[in-house]
Amino acid sequence: MELHILEHRLRVATVKRSDLLPFIGSLIKLALLHETSKSKFFSFTHTSRDFTIILDEEGFKALPDQAEKMGMVIQSSAWLVLEATAGNDDAGMTTVTRNIIVPLADRGLSIFCLSTCQTDYVLVREEDLPSVTQCLAPQFCVFREIEGNSEPVTIDRSQNGVHEAEAKRAIMYPLHFPTNNFLVTSLQPDMIPKITSSLLQVLFYPETCDPIETETSSQKEQFVSYSLIDDRISLVLDVDLLDRFPDNCICVDSAKERWRMVNTGVQNTGFEECGIVAQIAEPLASENIPIFYLSTFLTDHTLVPETEWNRTLTVLSHREECQDQDDGVIVEPNISTSVS
Amino acid sequence: MELHILEHRLRVATVKRSDLLPFIGSLIKLALLHETSKSKFFSFTHTSRDFTIILDEEGFKALPDQAEKMGMVIQSSAWLVLEATAGNDDAGMTTVTRNIIVPLADRGLSIFCLSTCQTDYVLVREEDLPSVTQCLAPQFCVFREIEGNSEPVTIDRSQNGVHEAEAKRAIMYPLHFPTNNFLVTSLQPDMIPKITSSLLQVLFYPETCDPIETETSSQKEQFVSYSLIDDRISLVLDVDLLDRFPDNCICVDSAKERWRMVNTGVQNTGFEECGIVAQIAEPLASENIPIFYLSTFLTDHTLVPETEWNRTLTVLSHREECQDQDDGVIVEPNISTSVS
Repeated sequence: MELHILEHRLRVATVKRSDLLPFIGSLIKLALLHETSKSKFFSFTHTSRDFTIILDEEGFKALPDQAEKMGMVIQSSAWLVLEATAGNDDAGMTTVTRNIIVPLADRGLSIFCLSTCQTDYVLVREEDLPSVTQCLAPQFCVFREIEGNSEPVTIDRSQNGVHEAEAKRAIMYPLHFPTNNFLVTSLQPDMIPKITSSLLQVLFYPETCDPIETETSSQKEQFVSYSLIDDRISLVLDVDLLDRFPDNCICVDSAKERWRMVNTGVQNTGFEECGIVAQIAEPLASENIPIFYLSTFLTDHTLVPETEWNRTLTVLSHREECQDQDDGVIVEPNISTSVS
Repeated sequence: MELHILEHRLRVATVKRSDLLPFIGSLIKLALLHETSKSKFFSFTHTSRDFTIILDEEGFKALPDQAEKMGMVIQSSAWLVLEATAGNDDAGMTTVTRNIIVPLADRGLSIFCLSTCQTDYVLVREEDLPSVTQCLAPQFCVFREIEGNSEPVTIDRSQNGVHEAEAKRAIMYPLHFPTNNFLVTSLQPDMIPKITSSLLQVLFYPETCDPIETETSSQKEQFVSYSLIDDRISLVLDVDLLDRFPDNCICVDSAKERWRMVNTGVQNTGFEECGIVAQIAEPLASENIPIFYLSTFLTDHTLVPETEWNRTLTVLSHREECQDQDDGVIVEPNISTSVS
C-alpha cells in the first residue's frame, strides 16, 4: 500500500453560529464559486453549536483580514493531509483505520479525520510529520507530493518505536446517537449553479432551515457537511433537507445513501487528545462496518449506513460496557496525554 | 395626482469595495433569500469605487453588529419614501421630475432618487418631512401609509413658500458619459433560485466579472444595481454581463431595454447638496426623454434609452454651454447651499 502526503497545507478553524455572519461572504466564494478561487481544499461542517472550517493556504487568504477579532478561532498548527491508496484505488476507511488511525493513536499522535465520497483523508500536524512517517513506514511505501509528482520519502527506521511507550489512548467519551437519517452524496461541480440557492440556505443560513422544535427534534443532530477538494464535492445532510433542493439534483437512488450518526463527546474533544477517532473506528473496522468519519473542532461524527445500524449499536454497546462508566457523564479530556 | 409617503423608514450606507467582504453574508440574505427575511425595501448599487446600500429597519438589523467598525459608512438620517401616482398608475419620472424633484430643489430640500422598473421613488430625510409635504401640497393630495392604509395628511398651507427665497441650486457638476450599454429589467422573485449563482457573482463578487483592462474598458463604467422592494425586483447591468446568466432567464426582448448612462460628478456629490437630480432630470423631462435615475452615495447615475441618446446629448450639451466651465474640471460642492 502507498501513503501519500499531499501538497495541501491546511488550517482548521471554528466559528460560533452567532459569529458566522462576517465570514459567510468568504465561505460562499470558496464553496460555491470555486472556479473563481485558487483554493483546492475546502471543508465546512456545521452543527447547532459551531462551524468547523478547513482551508488550504489560498482559502485562508480569502478570509477577512480581522478574522480572529471577528470571532474565528484558528487552530495554531498547519495540518498536512495523508491519503492511503491500494493500487490505484482509495484504500477504504477500514484499511485506513487499521493501518493509520490505530497505529497513530498507539503512538500518541493526534489526528483530524475527514471522509469524502471519494477517499478518506487523515490530517496530521505538520510538526508531527517525522513521527507520523516513521510510525506508518512499516505498513506503507510513503510518498510526498511535490509539484504534482510523487517523491518517495526515506525514513530513518532506526528510530522506529522509540516513543511507543508514551502512547496512551484518550479517555473514552460517551457516545450519542441522534435519531435522524443522513444522506451522503457526491456532487458534480457543474451542478452547483443549479442548486446554489438551496446550498446557500442549507450551508450558510441554517436558521432558514431550522425545524420547529419538537420533542422528537431535540433528539436530532443539526449537521451539514460540505467538502470541495480538488474539484470533487461531498455533501452530508439530513434527509429532511432534501425538499430544499430542486427535483433530481441530488442523487438519492437507493437506501445505501442513508446513514445514521454516532457522535463522540458533547463538548470539545480536544486537539491535544489522541485516539478519539480510533475508539469508534477500530471496533467498527474490526467488524468490517463501513464508516464515513468527520472530525470537527468540538465533536467527532461517525456516519454508518442505516443497513449496518443494528450491528453498529451492538459493537459499540460492548465498547460502552468495557468503558465502565455512566453513559450520561461528561468526562474532561485528560490533558496529560497531550502531544507536546 | 396623489403623493404617498410610504411606511418604509430607510437608512443609506456605503462600503468601499475593499471593505465589502464582511457584509456580503447579510446582503446575500436580503437580496437573494428574501423569503427568509422580513425586509421589504432593499437596494444595492455598486460601481468601481463603492457599494451603496439602502435598507429598511428590518434590513438594517440584518447587518453585522460592528458594521461601522468594519468600514460601513451609514448616513445619519432616516429617509422616508415618496411615491407619486396618477389614478392607479405610477406617475412616471417626467411627472415626478416636474412635480417633486424640481419643486424640492427650488425649496432647497435634498433628495435621494431611486427608479425601479415599476415606479420612481424619491427619498427625503425624515426631519425634512414637514417642509416636503408643505412644498408639494399644491401639486398633490398627500397621503401617509400607516399599517397598510392611506391616511390623508393635513398641511398647514399658511406657511407655504416661506423658505422659497432660501433655495439655491447645487453647483453644476461635470457630466460623464460612459461608453457601455446597460440593460434595465425586472425579475420575478421566483426566478431568483435559477440565477442565484449568476447574481452572486455579478452583485457581490464583481472581481469575478471584471473585464481585462483595455483602452476601451477605461471609458466604461462598472455599474450594477439591484433593488428588491415589496417583492418586486429591478436589475440594471452592463449588457456584457448577460453571458454570466443562463439562457432565457433575463428578459432581453428588444432594443428598448438597452440604456446609456450619464454620471453626475466624479466624486461625492454631497448629501447636503440639493438640486443634483434636478440639474439632469429637469432638462430631460422638458424634452419628454424618459429616464431611470439612481442616486448613490458618491455619484448620481441617469440612464436614458439608447434610442434617445442623441437627443440626450443635445439637451445636455445646451446645459453644459450654460454652465460655462471646462468639461474636465471637477468643482467642489458649495457647502454654503447645505440644508441645515
